Amino acid sequence: MERNFIANLRRRPTPQGVLVGIGDDAAVLPPSEVPTLWTTDMLTEGVDFLLAETDPRRIGRKALAANLSDIAAMGGIPTAYLVALALPRTGALELAESLYEGMKPLEEKYGIALAGGDTNCWDGGLVISITVQGRTGPKGVWKRSGGKPADILLATGTFGGSILERQFSFEPRVFEAIYLNENHDIHAAIDVSDGLSLDVFRLAAESGLGATLFPDEIPVADDAQKLAQRTNRSPLEHALSDGEDFELILAVDPDEAKTLLKTQPLENKFGTKLHRIGVLTTEPGLRPFPPKGFEHWSSNPVPEFP
Amino acid sequence: MERNFIANLRRRPTPQGVLVGIGDDAAVLPPSEVPTLWTTDMLTEGVDFLLAETDPRRIGRKALAANLSDIAAMGGIPTAYLVALALPRTGALELAESLYEGMKPLEEKYGIALAGGDTNCWDGGLVISITVQGRTGPKGVWKRSGGKPADILLATGTFGGSILERQFSFEPRVFEAIYLNENHDIHAAIDVSDGLSLDVFRLAAESGLGATLFPDEIPVADDAQKLAQRTNRSPLEHALSDGEDFELILAVDPDEAKTLLKTQPLENKFGTKLHRIGVLTTEPGLRPFPPKGFEHWSSNPVPEFP
Repeated sequence: MERNFIANLRRRPTPQGVLVGIGDDAAVLPPSEVPTLWTTDMLTEGVDFLLAETDPRRIGRKALAANLSDIAAMGGIPTAYLVALALPRTGALELAESLYEGMKPLEEKYGIALAGGDTNCWDGGLVISITVQGRTGPKGVWKRSGGKPADILLATGTFGGSILERQFSFEPRVFEAIYLNENHDIHAAIDVSDGLSLDVFRLAAESGLGATLFPDEIPVADDAQKLAQRTNRSPLEHALSDGEDFELILAVDPDEAKTLLKTQPLENKFGTKLHRIGVLTTEPGLRPFPPKGFEHWSSNPVPEFP
Repeated sequence: MERNFIANLRRRPTPQGVLVGIGDDAAVLPPSEVPTLWTTDMLTEGVDFLLAETDPRRIGRKALAANLSDIAAMGGIPTAYLVALALPRTGALELAESLYEGMKPLEEKYGIALAGGDTNCWDGGLVISITVQGRTGPKGVWKRSGGKPADILLATGTFGGSILERQFSFEPRVFEAIYLNENHDIHAAIDVSDGLSLDVFRLAAESGLGATLFPDEIPVADDAQKLAQRTNRSPLEHALSDGEDFELILAVDPDEAKTLLKTQPLENKFGTKLHRIGVLTTEPGLRPFPPKGFEHWSSNPVPEFP
C-alpha cells in the first residue's frame, strides 16, 4: 500500500526548486546564496487536533501552516517541505491522502515544494511532523532577540478563540513577512502559537527586555467574544492566552511603527491590519498581565508563567 | 518543564555551522555552494523499538543513525539535524534527556549540529522524527536510479538478525560514503533499511533494470546465524529480508568493482569490508529470490513483493 501511495506522490512532477525529490534516500535541493531557514513542528492527536471531530484535510493544512508561520516569524521565504507521518493502521491510506490534500492549497499558494517524507503505520494515534526550509529575506532574519528598548510592538490580525475554528483556517503571514522584510526595518519578531502574552514575554525576554501591553489596544477576535460567552473569562483574557492565533508580533522603532500604523501597507496589499499592542521596556517582565499561555509539557494552560 | 529542558539544550554553545540555533522560531544555516541533502525518518514505539525493553539512549541513537544512513546512501556529508518528539506524559523530561544523550556521540563523531526541534507531550506512545541536512559530496549525489546494466553490486558489512542487537548499535556508513564519493565512481546507492533483497530490487527498478544476487556471496551476519537457530528460516533468508542492517548497496562499473574488492580501501580505513553480492541486469525483477522485506504500511514482512 505504501508503494501505491508513494507512487501517487511521485506522479507529481519533481517540483521546481528540488533537484531530486520523492523516492530516493534523501531529497536534493539546489545551492543557496543566502542563509537558509529550517524549522520543524509536530502535531499530535488529542493535543493539536481531535481526529474524530475534524476533517483530516484541515489537520494536514494546520500542520503545514504552523510551520510556515515559523518561517514568516523569521522574515523568510518558505521553499520546500518534508512530511513524516505516524498513522493509525485503520484507514491509514485514506487518512494520508486527505492530509496531503489539505496541504496542497498552501503548497500552491506559497510556491513551496514537497521534497520528500516518511510514512509509517503504528498502533498509536496520528502524529504529523513537518519540516520546512526557507531562505532568508533581503534584510536578513528577524530574531526574537533583536528588540530594542522603546520599540513598539505591532501585531497582525486579531487574537483569541482560535479553538472555535481559526486554529485550522488561519492564514500564515508569509506574504506579509516577505513584504515587511523587503520594505521595512523589523527589529524582532515571533509568531503567536502559545498565547499572545506568553509569546510577547518570550520576545521581550530574548531581547533582554520586558514589555508593557496596552489592554485597550489588543485586537480581540470575534471568536474570543463568542468563546467568552461560554467560559468564565473575558474576551481579552482569551485574546491574551488562547494561542494558536499564528499572527506575527513585530518589534519596530517608534518612527517605523508610526509609518506602518498610518500607511497600513499590509492591509492595503493583503487585508491584514497592523495593531499597536505594546512597547518593549528596559524593566524586565510583562505588564499589566502575567504571561499566560500553552505549555507543551503540560498541555494545559499554565496560570502563572514564569 | 519544557523551559528547563530547552534551557539545558541552549546551554550548549551554538554549534559551528549554525547561525541561529535552538530557541528562535527557526534555525538559520549558512549559505551553501553545493546542493544540499534533506531527509526525514520517523521512529514509532512498538514498530521501531519497544520502549519498555530498551534503554532510551539506544532509541535516540537509532533515530539519528537511521537518518545519517540515508545521507550516506546519497554519498553526502551530514551537517545538521532537527528533532521532533512526541513524548508520553509520564517521565517525559527524563525520556527526552535520555534520547538526546543517545544522539550526542553520533553528533560528535560526525561533526553534525543540533539546530533545533519541537518537543511535545501527549497521551500516546513515543514518536521520534528527525530531519538531517547534508551537503553533496565532490562527485555529486548517488541516486538509486544511476545503475547501469552489468554494474556489480557491492555491499558494506554483513546482513541479517539485526533485531537481536544491531538495529540499535549499527554504525551509519557516513565515513565510508564520504571516502567513496571522493575517490571512486559510484553509479547508484541505497541503504538497507527494509531488507537486502527488497532494497536491491528497489535500486535496480529505479535504474530501469533488474538484478541477480549471488547466494553464496551474500555476507551473512553472525546474528543471522543465531536468529536462524530460533526460527524456521535459514541464516541466508534472514540476511535477505530482515532489514535494519543500514549497510550500503553500491552499483559500480565492473572494473571499479574489481579494484574496490581487491584493494578494500574501506576495510583498511574504517574496518568495513566490501562484498560483491550481485549484478544489475537488463532483465527486470530480482533473481534467484523474490524481493522480500519490511513494508511500512503493514509493519509485517511481505512474503512476495511485488
